[in-house]
Amino acid sequence: MSFTAKINGHNVLMDTKADDGGEDSGPGPKQLMLASLAGCTGIDIVSILNKMKVEFSQFSIDVHAALSNDHPKIYNLVKITYTIKLAEKDKSKMIKAVQLSTEKYCGVYAMFKTFAKMDTEIDYL
Amino acid sequence: MSFTAKINGHNVLMDTKADDGGEDSGPGPKQLMLASLAGCTGIDIVSILNKMKVEFSQFSIDVHAALSNDHPKIYNLVKITYTIKLAEKDKSKMIKAVQLSTEKYCGVYAMFKTFAKMDTEIDYL
Repeated sequence: MSFTAKINGHNVLMDTKADDGGEDSGPGPKQLMLASLAGCTGIDIVSILNKMKVEFSQFSIDVHAALSNDHPKIYNLVKITYTIKLAEKDKSKMIKAVQLSTEKYCGVYAMFKTFAKMDTEIDYL
Repeated sequence: MSFTAKINGHNVLMDTKADDGGEDSGPGPKQLMLASLAGCTGIDIVSILNKMKVEFSQFSIDVHAALSNDHPKIYNLVKITYTIKLAEKDKSKMIKAVQLSTEKYCGVYAMFKTFAKMDTEIDYL
C-alpha cells in the first residue's frame, strides 16, 4: 500500500496505517495535502517578511482540519495557526504577510478555499 | 525557505528552488499536492484490486497538471495516467477500480474536482 512520489529528484514516501492494510512507513496522502498547505503559506510568509526586512525566529505552522462524514471524505474545515517570535512593532507586518499569502499568493490556500471553510490565527511567542 | 512537515511521526521536507530563494532540498509544497492526489487514488486502487483478487504488477501513476496564469496560481487542469500490468481479462476490473476511486472513495480527487478539470487514462503494459 506504500507509494513513493518522485518530484524533481526528491522522493516522498506515502503509506497507510496498519488498520487500513499499510505499514505506516510514511504519512497518509490526504495528510500530505495539509503539509502542502502549511509549506505553501509558510514559504510565502518567510519571503514576505524578508522583503519587509522583519527579523523573526521560531516560526512554525499548525494545521488542524476536519473531514466530512461521507465518502469521498474531504476537508471541510481547516484552521491554520502561525506561531512566530518577532518585535512588538512588527506584529502588524506579520498580519499583513498572512493576509498577502492567504488572499493573494498562496495557490494551495486558494484551492483549499474552494472546498473548505478556512480560518487563520497568529500566536506570538 | 525550507519547512519540515511533521505528520504522525513522519517528517516531510519542503523547499523552493534556488530561483525562488530556496536550496531545492525538498519538493515544492504545491507539487506535493499532486503527490497527495496520486497517493490517494493509488492506495484506493491497490486496495480495490486486492479485494477483487486481481493480480497485477508494475503499477505506477503519473500526474500532469497545469497552473493558472494569475496569482494565486491554482491547478486548473490535471491529468492522471495509471500504468499497470495485468491479465487481459482483468482490464474491466481496473477500469471499475479507477471509477470507484475517482467517483466515490478518493477524497483528494473529490477536492481537486472543485477547482480543476480532471482527466484519467489507463495504460496497460
